[in-house]
Amino acid sequence: MKNTLGNVITLTLFGESHGPAVGCVLDGIAPGIPVDEGEIAAAMSLRRSVSSLSTQRKEADAVEILSGVYAGKTTGTPIALVICNADTHSADYAALANTPRPSHADYTALEKYNGFADARGGGHFSGRLTAPIVAAGSICRAALRARGITLGTHIARCAGIADQPFSLDPKAELDALCSMPFAVLDPLAAADMKKAIEEARDAGDSVGGVLESAVCGLPAGVGEPFFDTLEGLLSHAIFAIPAVKGVEFGGGFAMCDLRGSEANDPFAYAGGRVVTTTNRSGGIQGGISNGMPLLLRAAIKPTPSIFLSQKSVDLAAKTDTEIAIKGRHDPAII
Amino acid sequence: MKNTLGNVITLTLFGESHGPAVGCVLDGIAPGIPVDEGEIAAAMSLRRSVSSLSTQRKEADAVEILSGVYAGKTTGTPIALVICNADTHSADYAALANTPRPSHADYTALEKYNGFADARGGGHFSGRLTAPIVAAGSICRAALRARGITLGTHIARCAGIADQPFSLDPKAELDALCSMPFAVLDPLAAADMKKAIEEARDAGDSVGGVLESAVCGLPAGVGEPFFDTLEGLLSHAIFAIPAVKGVEFGGGFAMCDLRGSEANDPFAYAGGRVVTTTNRSGGIQGGISNGMPLLLRAAIKPTPSIFLSQKSVDLAAKTDTEIAIKGRHDPAII
Amino acid sequence: MKNTLGNVITLTLFGESHGPAVGCVLDGIAPGIPVDEGEIAAAMSLRRSVSSLSTQRKEADAVEILSGVYAGKTTGTPIALVICNADTHSADYAALANTPRPSHADYTALEKYNGFADARGGGHFSGRLTAPIVAAGSICRAALRARGITLGTHIARCAGIADQPFSLDPKAELDALCSMPFAVLDPLAAADMKKAIEEARDAGDSVGGVLESAVCGLPAGVGEPFFDTLEGLLSHAIFAIPAVKGVEFGGGFAMCDLRGSEANDPFAYAGGRVVTTTNRSGGIQGGISNGMPLLLRAAIKPTPSIFLSQKSVDLAAKTDTEIAIKGRHDPAII
Amino acid sequence: MKNTLGNVITLTLFGESHGPAVGCVLDGIAPGIPVDEGEIAAAMSLRRSVSSLSTQRKEADAVEILSGVYAGKTTGTPIALVICNADTHSADYAALANTPRPSHADYTALEKYNGFADARGGGHFSGRLTAPIVAAGSICRAALRARGITLGTHIARCAGIADQPFSLDPKAELDALCSMPFAVLDPLAAADMKKAIEEARDAGDSVGGVLESAVCGLPAGVGEPFFDTLEGLLSHAIFAIPAVKGVEFGGGFAMCDLRGSEANDPFAYAGGRVVTTTNRSGGIQGGISNGMPLLLRAAIKPTPSIFLSQKSVDLAAKTDTEIAIKGRHDPAII
Repeated sequence: MKNTLGNVITLTLFGESHGPAVGCVLDGIAPGIPVDEGEIAAAMSLRRSVSSLSTQRKEADAVEILSGVYAGKTTGTPIALVICNADTHSADYAALANTPRPSHADYTALEKYNGFADARGGGHFSGRLTAPIVAAGSICRAALRARGITLGTHIARCAGIADQPFSLDPKAELDALCSMPFAVLDPLAAADMKKAIEEARDAGDSVGGVLESAVCGLPAGVGEPFFDTLEGLLSHAIFAIPAVKGVEFGGGFAMCDLRGSEANDPFAYAGGRVVTTTNRSGGIQGGISNGMPLLLRAAIKPTPSIFLSQKSVDLAAKTDTEIAIKGRHDPAII
Repeated sequence: MKNTLGNVITLTLFGESHGPAVGCVLDGIAPGIPVDEGEIAAAMSLRRSVSSLSTQRKEADAVEILSGVYAGKTTGTPIALVICNADTHSADYAALANTPRPSHADYTALEKYNGFADARGGGHFSGRLTAPIVAAGSICRAALRARGITLGTHIARCAGIADQPFSLDPKAELDALCSMPFAVLDPLAAADMKKAIEEARDAGDSVGGVLESAVCGLPAGVGEPFFDTLEGLLSHAIFAIPAVKGVEFGGGFAMCDLRGSEANDPFAYAGGRVVTTTNRSGGIQGGISNGMPLLLRAAIKPTPSIFLSQKSVDLAAKTDTEIAIKGRHDPAII
Repeated sequence: MKNTLGNVITLTLFGESHGPAVGCVLDGIAPGIPVDEGEIAAAMSLRRSVSSLSTQRKEADAVEILSGVYAGKTTGTPIALVICNADTHSADYAALANTPRPSHADYTALEKYNGFADARGGGHFSGRLTAPIVAAGSICRAALRARGITLGTHIARCAGIADQPFSLDPKAELDALCSMPFAVLDPLAAADMKKAIEEARDAGDSVGGVLESAVCGLPAGVGEPFFDTLEGLLSHAIFAIPAVKGVEFGGGFAMCDLRGSEANDPFAYAGGRVVTTTNRSGGIQGGISNGMPLLLRAAIKPTPSIFLSQKSVDLAAKTDTEIAIKGRHDPAII
Repeated sequence: MKNTLGNVITLTLFGESHGPAVGCVLDGIAPGIPVDEGEIAAAMSLRRSVSSLSTQRKEADAVEILSGVYAGKTTGTPIALVICNADTHSADYAALANTPRPSHADYTALEKYNGFADARGGGHFSGRLTAPIVAAGSICRAALRARGITLGTHIARCAGIADQPFSLDPKAELDALCSMPFAVLDPLAAADMKKAIEEARDAGDSVGGVLESAVCGLPAGVGEPFFDTLEGLLSHAIFAIPAVKGVEFGGGFAMCDLRGSEANDPFAYAGGRVVTTTNRSGGIQGGISNGMPLLLRAAIKPTPSIFLSQKSVDLAAKTDTEIAIKGRHDPAII
């Protein structure tokens, strides 16, 4: 299905970094969900907000809603969202045509599309494609909110510096994150991370990190064995985000060194409701939600675009060469 | 799609641990692939082989091929594989009906299926369901081999003990793994792991670990942006395996603490072919194969079934209680 | 998706006419639906019942339920149904190997599967594959009945002889059809059809016809624009049945010669409910149910297997030849 | 999947008749296919061309290509096509809000979307949505042409007047149809049809008809048993076109009154190639192409929008009423 994800709610993504526009079609959203264009604009703005640290494009990223919304509410039909491209510096990329950037999609795209892809600015593989995902996500968030489900993400780790993890009941933390331009719970960690990002930037280098997301309010019983498990569906979606190299749920990789007696989540009654007193399962057992907060972490590799000189190949001359990437790029896409 | 995975090659899984049979339908395999029933039987045997360490059922696990194979070769039509159940001790599980086992699917299945599921032995959520996956995998392996693609998995970590990682060109290691009953490359690590598993078993407890898989021979250009990335499709499948809590590719989570200059894989010509001189990308860039070995790791939590007493709830009495799981269970499903 | 149909309820079909078994996996049925093995057996028996007219195999067609049913009810997990093959006369078909039967799938299967298909008895293309469809349909019928939806089919036309069409409210007719071994509403038409079938059989020839189906109790609002219309989904499924060459809904092809003023269905209130006073829409407007009975007709071509000599080719000798098909075959698969 | 069709080539459709735009995303087209914007414009123009007979909108229907095309060729990534709406007369439709038009989707849309749909001009159910289908089809046609496959459609029947059917080898007829504004092979039939359409229009009424399509150059072996048959996939797509009430292949419904000996297509060698000397199979046997021209017919009901007064209901007052539809509408959408 390539650029379409999902069976009930489907998202179809399109666009190239330096083409006329990027966008998406979001289908399957129930009719009657309020669509607040201000909320979408705020999400788009947050996507570009860490301006002192990054060198992103200056685009206004205005989201045009072409269909599926009427009188401020979803209609139940497909929602087409388009974001025009502007402020593109294609000249910066011209030199790269025959020299693939290390750990970018330049080389694999060339192999896959036989040279017909629009490679300018990373083309279809550009981080620019996350703009329509953010816009669609803003509408999905409203649809989830209408069902009492809230969610959010913080930078759990960046450049080796750790934020405090989500608590067992992270609802208040999710609320706080909504208005944070730099999504780190611990202010001291935030300051250290910013400093580390600046240092990497000044060195012409980049840093990576780990994102931690939580979903509160998901009822028990959501997810399907054997293949459409919550973990399977979510990881399938999350690996679409450029630079993600790992996804883990609950205790994740760290659970592997524990014994069963340490890793299992004990059940208990709390307020007449079945809960677990720890949440190493991340709210999922057997691929199905258990009513506890869903917890996942995604590993974000350091931005592959760096100013430092790197080893690459000249595909025309069929020789080894070096490459120094010009133009703008973030020292931390996390 | 619940119990069906894949668009081109599809696998549909069915069965309950204590029902008449488990099995699967594998569709989309090209016609003319040799099907060696001995190879399937060997794979089934390997699945149950670590007998001194585990307490698995004694089933012969004979795989019946009901369709799609004629004269020793695939026909191109769906291949139905059935493995009859036998040697089931349902009585062992009777006591569990109202007391869900911690970190098992008992509770979530109850919430999802309103009490109609066949809960005996874990029912549809049992590790028993991996038997038809192994059988189907054996046929897929033959189909891949016909295209020059080989693959294999070792226990990269168990109970905190690490095996040596795959080398940059792991083909010889994959060949060696084929005939290893305990899939650990370093014999000393293997001995330590076995000892740790035995200690956990003797303590009525269990251990977890990390599996590392490699795929050699995959050509460059396989995988799709934006959603059907190699990482997305593979993680979707791998999270179907019970007890997997995380999946990472190439450098994975450990990459997040590196700088871009350390994490990027330099390109170079080797033997007239473009390669990368490190493989932190795990053979994947932009969701698409780059011709290097594909590398992934899966986190396997400790077996949730342990003999030690654990805290749970009595769903009938709506009170907290304790549970001690009887019957057979492996101290290490890894 | 080849042999798997459906997104919410999925049916995966497997088997060859002369292989070990035919069967299917039915997934997505809600938990708690009663499964009456007697009802399934009755449906299987009805599939083979017109014995004085046809020459079908004598198989008992016992349906084994391998999974997904526990204590007489669906569990919510995949339901695997297997019907073993027996009474196969492969020798009858040996002569056909190089001489494709006209208007059968012999030639196209050969082109598609490069000669690896199990061609005995039509292989995967045999009408035998409708046995698991009937078995699965019997369970689906029970699931629909639990929601107040009933359905049925009669032979609306056979060998040029017409049955009376369904009335505007065909519920009583559907009930009557349940116990009819020869599904024709008008007894005189039934007698004429049987006579015509016998005449064709005696002439070594075969006849075709038209099936008309009705669904009562479907609420308004079911179906999706633009592609998963009720017509699109149902026709996709119905064309899987061998020998179907056309599908029409409501007024169908006959509507095309009417004017809009004659073809449109007027709305009216009846018993406080919106109805249409005619039903040329067949219960569907804009691809979505309108609360009226859903009506469809399927064109069934004459059985391609006939005893009369026919022109074909010898694929080995690359010459024209003649073929006279031996063995058993129905003069009317309708 | 609602508004997305296909597994390998996928088409996602969006838009409402009186919203900002209609459009689609076409994914899966191979890289390197020439995209001729003039050819797309010509197809769009042809869609609106029968101007003396119909009362369509005057929109220029300029197709904007937002992605997936670079330097005049497809890139292999999703192709987003957008057609802005203009010249909309929403006032014409205001009166209809509570009075559904007979045999339109007004009532079913209301039931499905709980009143949140944008009902202006038929909203998402408008024939306007065929504009992006035509645009996408123009690109698909170029992709097929690159593989030697040509296709076309004529009005085989309109208002009871029949055109001559396609011949056994319709390639020349397909070429002729490319430049015909009124797609009827027989000029006398064309004149009669136009006259009948004018008469219906003058009477405030409408007419229907039958479209016949042919595909030449399709190799043998395309299509899948059991569910993704050529007939199943094509009918699924064709029923998405508003007003289609039936689809038949080859001999279709007329075959049902023939005997097998009359309906079967004899095989023969012609020019060293296996052909059938008649084509009642419509190029398809067992759901798979046999190398002969693929033939299908679609029944198009008379335009439901007519000027004559019709019986309907007032959903607010819950009473029967009459409706006379104003505005523009075609007397023959065929």
